[in-house]
Amino acid sequence: MGLFERHQGLIERAVQASAERGYWSAFSEMPSPKVYGESAPADGKAAFEAHLGQRFELGQAGQGAAIAPEVSPYGVALGVSYPVCDAQTLVDAAQKAMAAWQRLGARERVGLCAEAVVRLNARSFEIAHAVMATTGQGWMMAFQAGGPHAQDRALEALAYAWAEQSRIPAQAVWEKPQGKNPPIRMRKDFEIVGRGVALVIGCGTFPTWNTYPGLFAALATGNAVIVKPHPHAVLPAAITVRVIRQLLAEQGLDANLVSLCVTDQPEVTQALATHPAVASVDFTGSNAFGQWLLEHCQQAQVYAELAGLNHVLIDSTSAYKAMLDNLAFTLCLYSGQMCTTTQAILVPQAGIETDEGHKSAEAVGADLAAAIDRLLAKPEVACAVLGAIQSDATLARIEQANAGQWGRVIRASQAIAHPDFPQARVRSPVLLACGAADEQAYQIERFGPIAFVVTVADTDAAIALSERMVKQHGALTVGVYSTRQEVLQAITEATWRSRVALSINLTGPVFVNQSAAFSDYHATGGNPAANASYADSAFVANRFRVVQRRQHIAA
Amino acid sequence: MGLFERHQGLIERAVQASAERGYWSAFSEMPSPKVYGESAPADGKAAFEAHLGQRFELGQAGQGAAIAPEVSPYGVALGVSYPVCDAQTLVDAAQKAMAAWQRLGARERVGLCAEAVVRLNARSFEIAHAVMATTGQGWMMAFQAGGPHAQDRALEALAYAWAEQSRIPAQAVWEKPQGKNPPIRMRKDFEIVGRGVALVIGCGTFPTWNTYPGLFAALATGNAVIVKPHPHAVLPAAITVRVIRQLLAEQGLDANLVSLCVTDQPEVTQALATHPAVASVDFTGSNAFGQWLLEHCQQAQVYAELAGLNHVLIDSTSAYKAMLDNLAFTLCLYSGQMCTTTQAILVPQAGIETDEGHKSAEAVGADLAAAIDRLLAKPEVACAVLGAIQSDATLARIEQANAGQWGRVIRASQAIAHPDFPQARVRSPVLLACGAADEQAYQIERFGPIAFVVTVADTDAAIALSERMVKQHGALTVGVYSTRQEVLQAITEATWRSRVALSINLTGPVFVNQSAAFSDYHATGGNPAANASYADSAFVANRFRVVQRRQHIAA
Repeated sequence: MGLFERHQGLIERAVQASAERGYWSAFSEMPSPKVYGESAPADGKAAFEAHLGQRFELGQAGQGAAIAPEVSPYGVALGVSYPVCDAQTLVDAAQKAMAAWQRLGARERVGLCAEAVVRLNARSFEIAHAVMATTGQGWMMAFQAGGPHAQDRALEALAYAWAEQSRIPAQAVWEKPQGKNPPIRMRKDFEIVGRGVALVIGCGTFPTWNTYPGLFAALATGNAVIVKPHPHAVLPAAITVRVIRQLLAEQGLDANLVSLCVTDQPEVTQALATHPAVASVDFTGSNAFGQWLLEHCQQAQVYAELAGLNHVLIDSTSAYKAMLDNLAFTLCLYSGQMCTTTQAILVPQAGIETDEGHKSAEAVGADLAAAIDRLLAKPEVACAVLGAIQSDATLARIEQANAGQWGRVIRASQAIAHPDFPQARVRSPVLLACGAADEQAYQIERFGPIAFVVTVADTDAAIALSERMVKQHGALTVGVYSTRQEVLQAITEATWRSRVALSINLTGPVFVNQSAAFSDYHATGGNPAANASYADSAFVANRFRVVQRRQHIAA
Repeated sequence: MGLFERHQGLIERAVQASAERGYWSAFSEMPSPKVYGESAPADGKAAFEAHLGQRFELGQAGQGAAIAPEVSPYGVALGVSYPVCDAQTLVDAAQKAMAAWQRLGARERVGLCAEAVVRLNARSFEIAHAVMATTGQGWMMAFQAGGPHAQDRALEALAYAWAEQSRIPAQAVWEKPQGKNPPIRMRKDFEIVGRGVALVIGCGTFPTWNTYPGLFAALATGNAVIVKPHPHAVLPAAITVRVIRQLLAEQGLDANLVSLCVTDQPEVTQALATHPAVASVDFTGSNAFGQWLLEHCQQAQVYAELAGLNHVLIDSTSAYKAMLDNLAFTLCLYSGQMCTTTQAILVPQAGIETDEGHKSAEAVGADLAAAIDRLLAKPEVACAVLGAIQSDATLARIEQANAGQWGRVIRASQAIAHPDFPQARVRSPVLLACGAADEQAYQIERFGPIAFVVTVADTDAAIALSERMVKQHGALTVGVYSTRQEVLQAITEATWRSRVALSINLTGPVFVNQSAAFSDYHATGGNPAANASYADSAFVANRFRVVQRRQHIAA
């Protein structure tokens, strides 16, 4: 039985799910021994620990001296070293591997990719520990977002890749009637070929979740892939690449089809991204580097997930406390180090109507600060939710915010001691207050646990401000709280124009910064925060081309 | 009955045809009164003639003074004048019209577009006369390529636009199980929104065939469209835009959703193409302007159909005469003024084996010249096949080629008197001989009736040369003649690497420069000649975005 047949049910269910967009997940998000096996937690931890202090071997082409660029936000000594490979050698090896991969055909390619995803799922605990240690995510998020949720996104990309490729026939007979004469008959063959070598550039916060869609979309559509992880979050990508390379070798294919490029030199990444043989670049990260890629990589299709100004408008609510709790959790989760975390909370200066009566703008800010305090009251809960701060730049930003540089401090960030990791840099969110006119404060992305309560003239002004911010600076998420239908309609229409996803009156255990594979499009691809979406047809359809040949059929 | 219901059978048949890729055409390619109505030929001619010397009114926003930029290659006095509209006003009006068009939904948009295509079909004679008079095409080609074949390509784009959009549900219920607790239930709404104003830039040779795919793909996916025709071929586009505007108005929609921008100032086109509100540009034309667009239109998706070095390899044949006749027709048809016409014919220096014995490379050139002479022996046939020379630049190139500047003249171009149009500039093809090393001769596009018989070391060298030319300069078509399976396999694999369509041993009434809608992909989009294909999912999927909203469903 081929790999496609083995996973056909899974692949077809994924295609169905992405078309229906209801709830579906291929993989359990609970790190439960009942699901993953009794020994899975301990085995995964041991597998992770076995990497520490070791050289991570992949047997790639062009290996040179090794570097160990990772720094754990938890203060864990990682010491994993990775051989630096010559970029040109990686490209050459990738190109060489592509011909056989193309000839395999879409069906077997998708089958092999599905097998890879299933194998990655089996290693969710190991990968989760690697994600947690390198990114600073809390354990549960590291398991879910780093493991099954990332695998779901991979499978979603495969579903689209399969849907698009499976509709192209391998062969057709073209028979054109000629009146009373015999028809003209031609045989046509259609070969799906990849665009070329794909470069997938990972980020430091979600090294699997943001890498898998591009990786598997490019791979399934016939391309070789070079994964270039963030130098601070290499291990999760390295494990992933090793799993795929092993599978390729088992199947008699050239493992160099997928390789890892470890570097802490931006020039190396820039040279790779503009290499004539690199036909697509998937990137998650800063606007600065993303814009550089969009400007300079004219030889490649660039799929860029950048940053934006996510925000929530509060007009009114019938569930004041639940709203505050929902917002507080969003602001605290992974210390706001998500590309989807809310940065600005827009409140009319006259305040809002709630089920607990009228609340002034100032009261909303104070009550939100109190909700954050409530959520973080127990240190073990606080540490589990907040995780640790991934980068020095974010730590520095928190200090600046605490100093009141960008607005009045409603709630200052505090350092919190982590019970298990004494060196962990854990910080609670800082909440600032400013006015709509203080654009230099809140209309610049302040990545990390920094949020603004922005006083706006009224709800209409807030809606207009939202539309302008998204069009100008981009956003991945917008939220709104209102009990008035006309307000919901107006913000809905504004988000159609600014092309951003909207969450309405979230009070339960669903948060504006979370998106569910197969149901929620992550980014619309229609505003400056991202030029592509996870995942849709556009995310896969231009990664391959169809080369046809035609010839007469003898009468 | 809505317009979608009215055309549902047609649309669904087109979706099926594009998936099966056998022969199918929605519209008759014969200019027959039996199909189009007894009075259609005369009515169409009269409708065309009624435009001559008149101001073409579209009632657009921002109208200023009119210009009459068209020059007929047949020497017909056209004198049609078109109001020049302020570009910013056109953009503003287009943006204003988009909201209602979006709200109409994909289904009604596709239905309206299908109605437009059917109405265009009914005006095929009028449009054919306009195409013939402006481009210099012969009558039969003007009717077929300007009418039904262009309409087929439009319908093909609609089929893809419908297939991609119809798979996105308008609404979904997301219900996530919570063990023993009640599930989390969310309602999600998905709105398809266009990317923004689309600019479709036409060419001087195929003003409908190369304009309709982008026009209808953009329109059906929710965008407003500004059509910018080549200043020498405005009338076919103007009639098209008028048909769509009338239909929009009838349906109570804002006609400014589709507008015509007539200008002979490249700066106006450049300003439009780089306008922040312009989100996509479809372009057919020169490499120089195409490259300018790709470099400067970073705010837009650019779909560029440029030029390349189309070529045919001759290794051997079992039908020497039929091969020569097939090649001769390709070189003569519309005087080689097609982006798909063969420019170089690669022949091994030792000659080729044929059913008529061994033929030296020189003999192949001489016999091809003789085949051209045979085809053009009767002046009325010659004029019907050749049509007239569209541009002064092509006329000048023919003179240069005739002067032997780029190689030994095997067959010189001659001026031919047209029986019906004394002022028509009709020229027969010029055939040159050169060696593979004379890259400055044949490896530069020589648009028009100029072809080279290039002597190459051997077939292997010809295959390698083909691959290199396509990768470096691009090509829309490659042909091969060989009786040897290993040669066909080698060139097939070369075209997979260079990503170009291949026609094998064409000897019947199918020509390398022709592509059939629903079956042949026009361009692969994978080499420098074009970054997109007519038509595939990639041609439509990135022209729209999905904006979602989600909210709890009360328990």
